[in-house]
Parts: sequence; structure tokens; C-alpha cells
Amino acid sequence: MKAVVFHGAGSKSWEDVPDPTLIDPTDAIVRVDAVTICGTDLHILKGDVPAVTDGRILGHEAVGTVEQVGSAVTGVAPGDRVLVSCISSCGRCRFCRDGAYGQCLNGGGWILGHLIDGTQAEKVRVPFADTSLYHLPDGVDNEAALMLADILPTGFEVGILNGAVQPGDVVAVVGAGPIGLAAMLTAQFYSPAHIVAIDLADARLDAAKQFGATVTINPSTHDAVEEVKALTDGLGADVAIEAVGVPATFEQCTRLIRPGGRVANVGVHGAPATLHLEDLWIRNVTITTGLVDTYSTPRLLKLLAAGQVDAKKFVTHHFAMDDFMAAYDVFERAADTSALKVVLTR
Amino acid sequence: MKAVVFHGAGSKSWEDVPDPTLIDPTDAIVRVDAVTICGTDLHILKGDVPAVTDGRILGHEAVGTVEQVGSAVTGVAPGDRVLVSCISSCGRCRFCRDGAYGQCLNGGGWILGHLIDGTQAEKVRVPFADTSLYHLPDGVDNEAALMLADILPTGFEVGILNGAVQPGDVVAVVGAGPIGLAAMLTAQFYSPAHIVAIDLADARLDAAKQFGATVTINPSTHDAVEEVKALTDGLGADVAIEAVGVPATFEQCTRLIRPGGRVANVGVHGAPATLHLEDLWIRNVTITTGLVDTYSTPRLLKLLAAGQVDAKKFVTHHFAMDDFMAAYDVFERAADTSALKVVLTR
Repeated sequence: MKAVVFHGAGSKSWEDVPDPTLIDPTDAIVRVDAVTICGTDLHILKGDVPAVTDGRILGHEAVGTVEQVGSAVTGVAPGDRVLVSCISSCGRCRFCRDGAYGQCLNGGGWILGHLIDGTQAEKVRVPFADTSLYHLPDGVDNEAALMLADILPTGFEVGILNGAVQPGDVVAVVGAGPIGLAAMLTAQFYSPAHIVAIDLADARLDAAKQFGATVTINPSTHDAVEEVKALTDGLGADVAIEAVGVPATFEQCTRLIRPGGRVANVGVHGAPATLHLEDLWIRNVTITTGLVDTYSTPRLLKLLAAGQVDAKKFVTHHFAMDDFMAAYDVFERAADTSALKVVLTR
Repeated sequence: MKAVVFHGAGSKSWEDVPDPTLIDPTDAIVRVDAVTICGTDLHILKGDVPAVTDGRILGHEAVGTVEQVGSAVTGVAPGDRVLVSCISSCGRCRFCRDGAYGQCLNGGGWILGHLIDGTQAEKVRVPFADTSLYHLPDGVDNEAALMLADILPTGFEVGILNGAVQPGDVVAVVGAGPIGLAAMLTAQFYSPAHIVAIDLADARLDAAKQFGATVTINPSTHDAVEEVKALTDGLGADVAIEAVGVPATFEQCTRLIRPGGRVANVGVHGAPATLHLEDLWIRNVTITTGLVDTYSTPRLLKLLAAGQVDAKKFVTHHFAMDDFMAAYDVFERAADTSALKVVLTR
């Protein structure tokens, strides 16, 4: 088959590789029908994720059709249309028992396209198939479902649920890329008073308005902290969601939050930040971090099936899988191409 | 009357001052029957809290007897025996409505011995008397109740409740001073598997054993992170409570916590810490900060009245109020005197 193979920082290619085969009795082999590229894949290509080694097939998001299952798999069968989640989980360890699937102790967690071969391929081996694949309801199309492989549960769980957004809250989302937009979209489940999008790119702020932002701030021309305070009787946002992944935006979140507020970090960070405990100790601030667990995936699927979430509007570009390198190029140049999510199909 | 008056960094005296008088109709004047000294008072005396100005009467903890009340006070009357809490609250603003009394927007919060004259005096004016004083049940003695003015609700709310301690948890408490010990004492309400006390002073670790610690670690001779991991299948503590207030101990808490765990900062900090988001972003860690709100004070009073909490064991030294300077001396030299809480009475 063909797959996107990582060859060290800066290098990848769409090339011939052996078909995946069942290894463990809990595995499934899934034919990939739709697949996308994540900002995390770009981090890997920059060399930021050293656990990804030369020869690894990239990708941790897909929708596909089950082709084969191991002898212990009882929940999915060949022919089933399934979501391949970015998180695999044994379903049995201490953390899985607690819904913390992203921290699975038995070899699950974020493994696809990271520690084992991933989804940017014509086929993929999925371990722990019974607890890592999700049947797709009729009427949910592949492209919409694909947004549930990573970005929607990540924005929802790590942003909105960790941030504990409540009705009437002012929610500031710093960073209006796909993850920030997913946070804005799912914030609306809890009826905030305002969703404030903060981003340096006006084009992304325009996109944010389509995803629920009621206020947009470009910090290159406006003081984001002062504007948020002006909106909140001088107090600050109830919830601030960091969806960039650099120290400056994290620290900005801790400055624009109200006493008693919550900063939910969603960004993937490569460097430490300064935590101003000399200001924060007295302000009852909660800071959360997290890799997505995907405990919300069944709930998000129900919302999708009920037509309550328009997930397809993330998709700005379409490609055939044979054009994977062109798709990467468009996604990497998102500032110029206004790409949010690119979808590749067979 | 006499009071402890602050005269700038390093300077205080027990001196004659005018008696307090009613200013607002919601005020009460309370005769101080028992009073103590807080570590925060030592911070003030070092000059760490610039809002405290020359001439201010110190102290934010007391038990006393109501002498006078303003025309709008309906909940307490002259002769009532009351706890004077470190937190005053209007009971009406957005934050008070939400139980966040420490963040009161109408002039409450931590004001006594900070922004207005405090309790280290023969009498004290208490604003918002109806929502800032607590009747003491018969059978609860003054000395035990005095521990509820600050340290017990602080250790409980900012440590144990923010840390969300659950049955079976391993709770690491870094710092075994009065606040750390209050956290250890109240952690037991939730039946943890282990309470691990971490402190550089062996005498404080000995005290910790009296307050519920089942494991003690002196990091000057043992690697605290490794010892906690050895106790927790290599994962780390479920909850880490920072009760010192310096960057090194905060950062230690973020290293000894398990994936999905909670770091509850209780310490009063004067300098920023480094937050290693490059490690923490993927570990689902929650960090909380906070000034006490005292929403738990009625609950703690019930536990005290029921004999479920031995609060008096914090009290190591007794003085008459006229010996306030000697009491400060003993408290300041806690490393030599093994002082935990010193109590001064009329």
C-alpha cells in the first residue's frame, strides 16, 4: 500500500510500504476512507516530537472500513464503518477505568502516527479495536465524523470541559486555529455570554466569527487583556483557553483571567512558561493541562447525528490520497491558503 | 487600648492606640479574648505585603465577645461569643454570592490587619458583621475555635478541597508548618491511602506524624520525587499540596504529581515559578491557587463541636496579650522553639 512515511525532521514522502497485518488478537485492520493532517504532524515534521522515528507512518485521525479483526475483537466486524480516534485505550488499566484514556498504562494513549504506524495510509492497524474504534451512525458522513478523531474532542474536553464553561461566562480563546475553533464551537453547548477570539491573523478572526466568536481581538493592534477587562467589569474572563502552545500566549491567559477563573491549556508546548505565582496565589485561579482522553467522543457523535454540530465547516480543502504531499503543502501554508482542515479521500 | 502596631518593615510595637468605633451600620466592635500570629504577619513584617502601611494594627485571627453592633446588624448582639474570621465579606456581590468570599468586591476579603486595623489588639472593628462573624457553639473552647480563623479553612479549602482529595489517594504535602499540618489534618476527612509530609526540618516531620502523615520525607537526605514515585507504582502522587511559598517547592509539586493529578498551591508566593508546560501539557495536570474563602467555616465548626477535630494540638505556646512581643519572638524562631501556633489571651 501507499502511506506518508516520516524520514526525520523536515522529510516525508508518500511511498510504498507493506500492508499492515494483525499482531495482537485485539487488533483490527481498517481501510482508510478519509484522513486529515493535524498541527501535531507539523510539530513532528519540525523534529519537536523525538519519539517519532524514521520510517514511521504519520497520522492519528481517520474514518474507514474494518477489513479484518483479531480473534479477541467482538465489538466491530469487517465491513463496519468506523471512526479511528487519535487515542487508543486498553479499557482496563487504572487510568482507562477512570476515563483517562489518553494516559492508558497498557500501551494505549496517543500511539497512532507517534509510537506505531498511523492513519495517513491506505490501511492502518488499530490496537485495542473494541475500545478505540467507534461505529458511525447512519446519516453521519465521513468528513464530518473525521473532525471527531481529534480536534472536536480536544477542543471540547481539554478546553471547554477542563475550563468548566458555564452559562453566562465570558470565554476567551487565545489562538483561532482548528483547535481554538473547535473550542469556540463546543463552548456554545454551555451558552456563554461571550466568546472572545484572540489571534494575530485577521483571517483567522474572520473564521472565528463563523465558529461562534462574538468578539474578536487582534493583539497586534489592541491590548487583549484590557479589552477583555473592559468586557467584564474590569474583572477578566471567566475561562481562558490557550490554543497556541507558546509561553507568551499561556502567560496572556493568566493575565486576562478573573479571580476564581480557569485557564485551560490546550496548546502543545515545547518550552517552559513563567507562572506569576506572586500575583496568582491570591486570585483563586485554576490551570489545567491535558492530552485529550476522548471520553466525550460518543456524546459528540450523538450531537453530530442529531445535526446539532456542523463539523464539516472545518474542512476547507479536499485532496485525493495520492496528492498527500500537496495537501501537506496547503496545510503548512495555512497563513496564505486559509486552510483549516484538509481532507484526503481514496 | 493596646495593640500590635506595624511601623514599616522590621518594626512593630505593643502600644496605646484609640479604641475602635463603629463606622458603618454593618460593623461590630468585638473584644478580643484570644488571638494568634500567622506566618503572613511575618511576611508583612519583612515588607513583603506593601499594602500594609505604617500605623496599621496587625492580625486577622481572633475569638472574642461582641461589645457593640451597628444599626444594620441583626445576626450578632453584644455579649455573643464569636469567631473573627480572616475573611470579611459583604455577602452580596457577585463573588460572595458564589461563595468566593475571599474575592469580595465590596471591600471585604482579607482586610483585617491588612487594609484596615486587625485583631492583635484588645478590641477590633469587624465590618460586615453579619457575614464575617461566626457564633461559637457551647462546648467549643476559644483556643480550638481560634484555629478556624485562618489555618484550618485555608488548609482544607485551598489544599484539600481544591486538590479534590479522594478516598485511597496518595496526598503529598510539601511544607509541614501550621498550614501544611492543617492540610494533613483535614485530608483525613477523605480517607487517603497515604499522607506524605515533605519538609527540610525533622522536627516538623515529627509534628506531621501527629497530624496524620503516614510517610515523611526530608529532601535534604532523600529524593522526594523518587520516594513518592516508589510509593505509587512509579506514577506520582494523586494530589500535591504546596504549603511553603517558594518556586522550588512549587516546581517539586509539579514533578511528584501523577498524570491526571492535582497540584493545590496554598503557599504565599513572592516570586514567579517556572511552569514546565513542555512536560505538563500532555499529563492532564490541574494546578489551583487560592486565598481562603472560609465557605467551609460552618462545616469545620460542626466538626469541632462534634469532637471530630482536635484543633488545640496546633497550640504550642501561650502568652498574655501584654507579652505580644515575646510571642512574636517565639513564633519567629519556630525552627528553634518548635512553635506551631502561639495563643495570646486577655
